[in-house]
Amino acid sequence: MAYIQLNNGLPGITGLLENRVDTAAPIRELTQILLRGKSTLTEMERELIATIVSFKNECRFCTKAHAATVIALGGSKELLDTVYHDLENAQLSEKMKSLLVIGSKVQEIGKAVLPEHIERAKKAGATDKEIHDTVLIAALFCLYNRYVDGMGAYCPEDPAYYQKLAARLTTIGYDRPKDAMARKGEESFK
Amino acid sequence: MAYIQLNNGLPGITGLLENRVDTAAPIRELTQILLRGKSTLTEMERELIATIVSFKNECRFCTKAHAATVIALGGSKELLDTVYHDLENAQLSEKMKSLLVIGSKVQEIGKAVLPEHIERAKKAGATDKEIHDTVLIAALFCLYNRYVDGMGAYCPEDPAYYQKLAARLTTIGYDRPKDAMARKGEESFK
Repeated sequence: MAYIQLNNGLPGITGLLENRVDTAAPIRELTQILLRGKSTLTEMERELIATIVSFKNECRFCTKAHAATVIALGGSKELLDTVYHDLENAQLSEKMKSLLVIGSKVQEIGKAVLPEHIERAKKAGATDKEIHDTVLIAALFCLYNRYVDGMGAYCPEDPAYYQKLAARLTTIGYDRPKDAMARKGEESFK
Repeated sequence: MAYIQLNNGLPGITGLLENRVDTAAPIRELTQILLRGKSTLTEMERELIATIVSFKNECRFCTKAHAATVIALGGSKELLDTVYHDLENAQLSEKMKSLLVIGSKVQEIGKAVLPEHIERAKKAGATDKEIHDTVLIAALFCLYNRYVDGMGAYCPEDPAYYQKLAARLTTIGYDRPKDAMARKGEESFK
């Protein structure tokens, strides 16, 4: 049960966003731009940044949700385990590893990002926009993780919940479900 | 100098937001709702939450900017020093102290917010909306602080810079300066 009375029975971030739609709208918009907007990073790569940050922030709901999304986008449990625990040996490009290091440093504290982390990413071919978006995605998930856990939001245990959520996030994205559903004529997500 | 090439010579968060206006728009909108929208918390109380989080995240730019804003709204350097270092003895209501404790816990990590912190705030008369907004303001400044420092944004040393910035934040608020200036017919903020 969340720490405050929600006006719906929805879990995790979904319950919070539907409870307060005025603040939810810009949060959804920012996420949609960063994770689904035009980018030279794939959606899976951007979801990996969200996932490693959520994992390091020990946010169970967000970690499960975005890990399921990574898998829905072609990743695997093995990839995720390596990213969590042994990043330098993950089956990822040097550029992607360097960006995930930046994301991990952002998770710790902003000033943990040092010139050497940026230089490594640039040397591996990362553009300024890719570095910018990595930092801002990581910072955004530091917001999400704290919002979810700071409000004591309910975290379902059933893996099927996260598979269904991932199916939404990989098709509709981060727009408000009802709006998106109305546009796409699909059944509302619970 | 920021870690990436910015398209302007502006410092701190201002340089980042003007460099990437698509992601800046929802960030500004969320901040305007939370810090300047209708609330039973005063603007100074909400700025205090932003300031204590920025201080604990060791983000010099944001701490200076929001401390100057607290002072512009009627606070004092003495109040800020007590909030930073000796919160329980600050000249604030029990409700405000309990909310600043929640904000401080959010800064650490979401799951650091415990039922006892929420109970203390509720016992002191905090509403669900006040608790919600405290958590989300604190989470938002965890985003801002990491964005600013993770991008290596320039932090001016001159106190006059922050006084000028605070004068904007207490009159125009968090809307994009040029838009706000156009509406209000004022000189553009540099």
